[in-house]
Amino acid sequence: MRYNLWFGVYENGRVEKSGDLRRSFLNAHNPSPLPFSVSEVGAEVFGEEYYPTLRKVAISVAQMLVEKELRREDRYVIALVRTLDEINNTANLLDEKLRELKEVKESELVREFEEKILELKRFRGEIEREIEVVMRKIAPNVSEIVGEKIGARLLEKAGSLEKLAEMPASTIQVIGAEKSLFKALARMRKGRKAKVPKHGVIFQHPFIKTLPKKKRGKMARFMAGKLAIAARIDYFKGELNEKLAEEVRGKYEQLSRK
Amino acid sequence: MRYNLWFGVYENGRVEKSGDLRRSFLNAHNPSPLPFSVSEVGAEVFGEEYYPTLRKVAISVAQMLVEKELRREDRYVIALVRTLDEINNTANLLDEKLRELKEVKESELVREFEEKILELKRFRGEIEREIEVVMRKIAPNVSEIVGEKIGARLLEKAGSLEKLAEMPASTIQVIGAEKSLFKALARMRKGRKAKVPKHGVIFQHPFIKTLPKKKRGKMARFMAGKLAIAARIDYFKGELNEKLAEEVRGKYEQLSRK
Repeated sequence: MRYNLWFGVYENGRVEKSGDLRRSFLNAHNPSPLPFSVSEVGAEVFGEEYYPTLRKVAISVAQMLVEKELRREDRYVIALVRTLDEINNTANLLDEKLRELKEVKESELVREFEEKILELKRFRGEIEREIEVVMRKIAPNVSEIVGEKIGARLLEKAGSLEKLAEMPASTIQVIGAEKSLFKALARMRKGRKAKVPKHGVIFQHPFIKTLPKKKRGKMARFMAGKLAIAARIDYFKGELNEKLAEEVRGKYEQLSRK
Repeated sequence: MRYNLWFGVYENGRVEKSGDLRRSFLNAHNPSPLPFSVSEVGAEVFGEEYYPTLRKVAISVAQMLVEKELRREDRYVIALVRTLDEINNTANLLDEKLRELKEVKESELVREFEEKILELKRFRGEIEREIEVVMRKIAPNVSEIVGEKIGARLLEKAGSLEKLAEMPASTIQVIGAEKSLFKALARMRKGRKAKVPKHGVIFQHPFIKTLPKKKRGKMARFMAGKLAIAARIDYFKGELNEKLAEEVRGKYEQLSRK
């Protein structure tokens, strides 16, 4: 009889130790009760290190599963953001047809069509709420600074929470403005004057939009700096640090005063 | 006091005859009772032709209104066909997002989204039924020959029932295959060999699709000829003439036999 134990394979009284303890831990499924004591067999392999090793491997496996789940969750947010965009797009296309129909005839069917489009639009609200819930869970610090909506948009453009966490602040600042950024860089390469764009995703935030034009760049730079830190804390599953958002608000108040 | 009579304006005992009797007929709204007899005033203008003229104008106005209503109905069918196409397009776009979401996570929201897309697809059936009803009313002869669905598609490509009625059979035969037709014509102009397309709207009909390839052209030509006649009868509001469809079926049976 062959048994898959958390530290390897046990067969005919002999243990073959696993090369990847996390993998063997995940594969350890046996019919119980076992005709031997796992901890006794384990002690033969690890000696006094049996329980400390078990503890280390178990924590590591748990972390791996949580990470996997979180990676799935950021992909979920990204898919939701893209779905929201597609619903906006299709609702516009259908609205156009509705207008054409209404110009010709106001039938019961046309009213039903209008209702179908409205239902689709109402569903956007549900997607937005789901985005909020998941963002609060996987990126509480980013969400605290710019809100779940803009945060999700940053995640979508970055491609994943990991990629966002790896980005320098200067990149986060212009996420969503790639087109005008590359245009400006191309002009600069030719020796011409060009302005670096200020219309990325974070420029939609009221802290930037409501400032006088001259101060927006400064605010965006500050906010992007804090976002870069926040994204790293979120990626490494740190707790919510309210100081970051407070600093951003403080900077906004300072800039809007003077 | 000024009165708008069906044949013109009556003021201070004098009549100013209208240049467009159908227009004045439609605008003749006065407070009743009138302090004079319309037919007596009319007799001064038309003599013995008063009642025959009134009859002629009344019939002409009625026809105009019916025609206007029918023009509206063919525009309605066209708008419905285009709506159907747009729903197909948007349902595909949304299906793509649904697939992306499902790959990542099977949430309650995703199930709701799937239901929303299904509702949109189910609504296509209602549009198809409405197209059938209106087509039977405004184009019974065309519908009898190729069915309401293909008939509506012909109407949509032609632009109106009037335009379809004005088309020669050879044009109706290739409606919906304009792209490959113009390609073939361009090749011919350059002195090259080219095949005239056989994949227009009517080629979707089972009478053509189920025939051997060699006979499809002949069947399509015959069917298009009958459709040209049918469209004219429909446009001038003729009755349903079942002979046309019978002839088409006869031709199909003859071609599929030998």
